[in-house]
Amino acid sequence: MKKNYLFTPGPTMVPPEVSLAEAQPMIHHRTPQFSQIFYELSEDLKYLFQTKTGEVYTLMSSGTGAMEACVANVLSKGDKALVITSGKFGERWVELCKCFGIETEVVSVEYGKGVEPSRVEEILKKNSEIKVVFATQSETSTGALHDIKAISQIVKKYSALIVVDAITGIGVHKFLMDEWNVDVAVTGSQKGCMLPPGLAFVCVNSGAWEAVEKGDLPRYYWDFRKMRKNLKNKTTPFTPAVSLVMAMKTAMEMIKKEGIENVWARHERLANATREGVKALGLELFAGNSSSNVLTAIKAPEGVDVDKIIKKLRDETGVTFTGGQDSLKGKMIRIGHMGYVNDFDIILAISALEKGLHEAGYPVELGKGITRVQSLLVKGR
Amino acid sequence: MKKNYLFTPGPTMVPPEVSLAEAQPMIHHRTPQFSQIFYELSEDLKYLFQTKTGEVYTLMSSGTGAMEACVANVLSKGDKALVITSGKFGERWVELCKCFGIETEVVSVEYGKGVEPSRVEEILKKNSEIKVVFATQSETSTGALHDIKAISQIVKKYSALIVVDAITGIGVHKFLMDEWNVDVAVTGSQKGCMLPPGLAFVCVNSGAWEAVEKGDLPRYYWDFRKMRKNLKNKTTPFTPAVSLVMAMKTAMEMIKKEGIENVWARHERLANATREGVKALGLELFAGNSSSNVLTAIKAPEGVDVDKIIKKLRDETGVTFTGGQDSLKGKMIRIGHMGYVNDFDIILAISALEKGLHEAGYPVELGKGITRVQSLLVKGR
Repeated sequence: MKKNYLFTPGPTMVPPEVSLAEAQPMIHHRTPQFSQIFYELSEDLKYLFQTKTGEVYTLMSSGTGAMEACVANVLSKGDKALVITSGKFGERWVELCKCFGIETEVVSVEYGKGVEPSRVEEILKKNSEIKVVFATQSETSTGALHDIKAISQIVKKYSALIVVDAITGIGVHKFLMDEWNVDVAVTGSQKGCMLPPGLAFVCVNSGAWEAVEKGDLPRYYWDFRKMRKNLKNKTTPFTPAVSLVMAMKTAMEMIKKEGIENVWARHERLANATREGVKALGLELFAGNSSSNVLTAIKAPEGVDVDKIIKKLRDETGVTFTGGQDSLKGKMIRIGHMGYVNDFDIILAISALEKGLHEAGYPVELGKGITRVQSLLVKGR
Repeated sequence: MKKNYLFTPGPTMVPPEVSLAEAQPMIHHRTPQFSQIFYELSEDLKYLFQTKTGEVYTLMSSGTGAMEACVANVLSKGDKALVITSGKFGERWVELCKCFGIETEVVSVEYGKGVEPSRVEEILKKNSEIKVVFATQSETSTGALHDIKAISQIVKKYSALIVVDAITGIGVHKFLMDEWNVDVAVTGSQKGCMLPPGLAFVCVNSGAWEAVEKGDLPRYYWDFRKMRKNLKNKTTPFTPAVSLVMAMKTAMEMIKKEGIENVWARHERLANATREGVKALGLELFAGNSSSNVLTAIKAPEGVDVDKIIKKLRDETGVTFTGGQDSLKGKMIRIGHMGYVNDFDIILAISALEKGLHEAGYPVELGKGITRVQSLLVKGR
């Protein structure tokens, strides 16, 4: 009886009640029935981003599409931007800026580490013309976490805007849009939101509008101004993904019922248990102490073909972990634990990890990882 | 017992088996399991567009997003384009070109009519610098149909590219990508494909690649080159909408089983019955003889508040028609009949139309419309 267990950094597991909501009969999007659902969802999304002054737009795209929307809206020709990179997703901001002809300064951080906020300040001090700083909350390619609160404080001292890729952060890590003074933040549906991929959410705070209004880069599908205007009428500029919107409404009910602080605390608890379970097996963490609670990135032990382990587990047991991407290929095992994940899922994941390593001939004491996880979780830590 | 019947020009009704496919447990998109599904779907989509020389890319966006992708890929700075407009959706091509700084010539056709191909030739003759012609197969805002085959023949005489919005055309009307020499064509999931909104499909034929390769407009999420490269590896550049892809696979199985020629014939037969049923009630068609088989647009009879009829039917009976958009508001009732629609659905739609008109005090002979439909359909015409 093979079951599928997705410990991947997105798509993540979808609760059955969300899947059923997605399978509801179709309704037309230009009706009061849909508008009411869409309006309520848009209000719920403010809670997800922890904003009262901002608005959240629902895009039909992947997270990358929403990132492109940010670049196309907040910048103008000739503007200069600063990008903090520590992996594939930070580097995506650089590529997007380049694509639109925007010159960038880059603070490049060692893979697996979060940025030292002082490094951001150094560059801003020297480059007063920098208008926007692009950051990543959780760098999914390495498991590193950046301190958005601290970065934002610095950015604000220099009167720049801060745009955050919180695609795997929102709904997992504490994220306070208003309190931290974030101008624009992005997330995707297939992460902490427990939905299939298909929707992205962009929160645009009040401080970003001046730049958006006077922006001169080409934007049509991505135009925040159209989204704002349509949201006033409880609708979207273009046909929305109706079934995913209905599913997201259900997912938000679950998040509201648990309470966003409890959602963050659950992820912290599960991530901590995973890290401890991994360490109990004598393995090393890739991102060390700056680990995000989104996933646990494990350094590949010397001489072990981790991609083979991942493939075997997936094909034989249905437990899906992921390896490293691009230059990190073969160098890590990543265990995602975001969204629809509970204590027993972590026991299961570490049990599969033990099994995979053991079968690959790597010396693990069977039961040691799961015993460590069990003792932490049952004691409620 | 109120049921929902969507006679709207998208989203359209979704077959239960497609909804169930959409509700399947999530799988990760970077796995052989998903790649196999995605590869088979991409092959099936060639059948849908009737192409052997082109490739079909699956975008996570609405149809408008895919239209933007066309503009961003086939044009370069300083290029000139020709747009054929006869309603809201043709005009969208003009807006998109404008957004990217592309100068356009426009052949503006009276609302409700298809273009005289000779008018396209006149402009091409006078403007040898026109590189791309943008057309619409079925102009959903009015119900007009354009003769893409004839337009394409002319465009090819002048060595320009032709890009077709076939969003409501594909899977409804005969569309022969290769035989008609179409360079790029677009459709959306929530039309003839019988899916919820969320996916768009772009077919790029061999003749378009030179322009795409040397294009210099900003494109990242929309980049056809990335899509082509990734399709070779049976995947997508960015996270795909996994649940909708699985649903589309099921929808394509249904289309293949019926046979695309039979799908076109069914739509023609149902559209014809609808038009005849409407005329039997003494009503006039908005698009006259150039009507598309996508929907039947009925001219609002003098002094009748059609939007009130539409609203009352929708709220009281669950039968959803749509009215006119923008400048056509209040001027028409549109009955969509694309995708998951059969004979009995047309009887039902005309029955609701009779009821709505009767209750609004408009003189209709109850039963006259449905009797006409019944006689046509039972005789198999």
